[in-house]
Amino acid sequence: MSTNYVHGYRSRENRRLQDQADTLLELLHGDTRYPAGSTVLEAGCGVGAQTLALARGSPHARITSIDVSAESIAQARQRVADAGITNVAFREADILALPFEPQSFDHVFVCFVLEHLPAAALVLERLVRVLKPGGSLTVIEGDHGSTLFHPDSAAARASIDCLVQLQRRAGGDALIGRALYPLLARHLEAVRVGPRIVYVDSSRPAWVVGFTNKTFIAMVEGVRDDAVAAGMISAERFDAGVHDLRRTTEADGVFCYTFFKGVGLKRRA
Amino acid sequence: MSTNYVHGYRSRENRRLQDQADTLLELLHGDTRYPAGSTVLEAGCGVGAQTLALARGSPHARITSIDVSAESIAQARQRVADAGITNVAFREADILALPFEPQSFDHVFVCFVLEHLPAAALVLERLVRVLKPGGSLTVIEGDHGSTLFHPDSAAARASIDCLVQLQRRAGGDALIGRALYPLLARHLEAVRVGPRIVYVDSSRPAWVVGFTNKTFIAMVEGVRDDAVAAGMISAERFDAGVHDLRRTTEADGVFCYTFFKGVGLKRRA
Repeated sequence: MSTNYVHGYRSRENRRLQDQADTLLELLHGDTRYPAGSTVLEAGCGVGAQTLALARGSPHARITSIDVSAESIAQARQRVADAGITNVAFREADILALPFEPQSFDHVFVCFVLEHLPAAALVLERLVRVLKPGGSLTVIEGDHGSTLFHPDSAAARASIDCLVQLQRRAGGDALIGRALYPLLARHLEAVRVGPRIVYVDSSRPAWVVGFTNKTFIAMVEGVRDDAVAAGMISAERFDAGVHDLRRTTEADGVFCYTFFKGVGLKRRA
Repeated sequence: MSTNYVHGYRSRENRRLQDQADTLLELLHGDTRYPAGSTVLEAGCGVGAQTLALARGSPHARITSIDVSAESIAQARQRVADAGITNVAFREADILALPFEPQSFDHVFVCFVLEHLPAAALVLERLVRVLKPGGSLTVIEGDHGSTLFHPDSAAARASIDCLVQLQRRAGGDALIGRALYPLLARHLEAVRVGPRIVYVDSSRPAWVVGFTNKTFIAMVEGVRDDAVAAGMISAERFDAGVHDLRRTTEADGVFCYTFFKGVGLKRRA
């Protein structure tokens, strides 16, 4: 009985988390739909988390997903195969040395990639090169500076700031979301950027677990040792920050994070 | 010719600003609709900026709008009369000493009021008292900590923080938006809170002028002398912050602000 109950509980819990993940994917990708037969480049697919949503949203588009890591590509390929998806081809490739002719793709899609790269503007230029005139480029990125929570906490903000600083030292930009418009407008026309805000309070328990706890706080916790080793913060202060972030997952807590999604078109000649 | 041109230009500009204001009102109030014949209390109507949207959205509801300032009430009454709106009755009254019997209203509406009051929780309790069981309470508030912009600027953030500090000294809470859920959940059931984000880049010129410049930056500039006099910041630093905020209204700039809207129902006995 006890085992059955626990199993049952876990199933419900997993189902809730899956529902949350699906809702987040819908929030980010729900309005990305590519026509049947069109060719789409997904640049920087990682282990395929977004690839699944992309392929399901455009089941008759022909998607090419690249990543610089052979290991990630292998995982993404397995994930897509397990899901029974057949319209994605994978290829190991460097986003700065794309193995494609100019104007090879009808559309290009990049999600959670530019924030980690030292040369976001250059990457965009390269991606635009392989895009056909009139084709669309879609970019989705986060912005850690958008984080907002109740109760507010200076320690929690300091812990999050470690993530921002470490990403900057690695050449990335954890605040890139807010800068998508100028980045895209430099290379594309008809650019439209919109925020996608994840708002979590205790009336949305699946989001409390799936987003605040298992996505955001887990990400912050993941840099603890690096941040302390780099002398950015004391272990005590960092841990106090994580404690205060967990505090926002209680019944009276609130947590918000804003993603930014931008779409632009390649100029015709 | 010149005069005509200037006049024409001003008309277009005014029209754009009005369009922007209408769009903001739609973003905030578009989903607030009260049934014909229902009684609605608008608590803290000020000069009637939200009253117009409220009354237009629910033309057959009977709205009572109160404010503690006779002068504001006079302005609001004129504004509503000028707009040809006939379903609003005004009354001078203190939100903490409501001149109404318990359970007098079908619905209660509060917008941009709690952030200025020292006792938001107590005010909510009083408002719930005059609400009928099963009736709804709607609250809309800003959150100055949600401000996000590109290019980022520590000086701009410092200037905005003066607003937060001054509001706190006056007993208010400029970060109240994120705390709406626990505030409402203490007194109401079926509480739902959602963010309403204003995202502005140069592809939305009416918002650049109407929201970033004439609403937000104007509000920050309005506290310059008080902030400097209070020793919170030097005049130079404050002015640098405002300069950097204006920088976000240029072609490559971005500005975001998040409002929060919450609705809950009064428990039935």
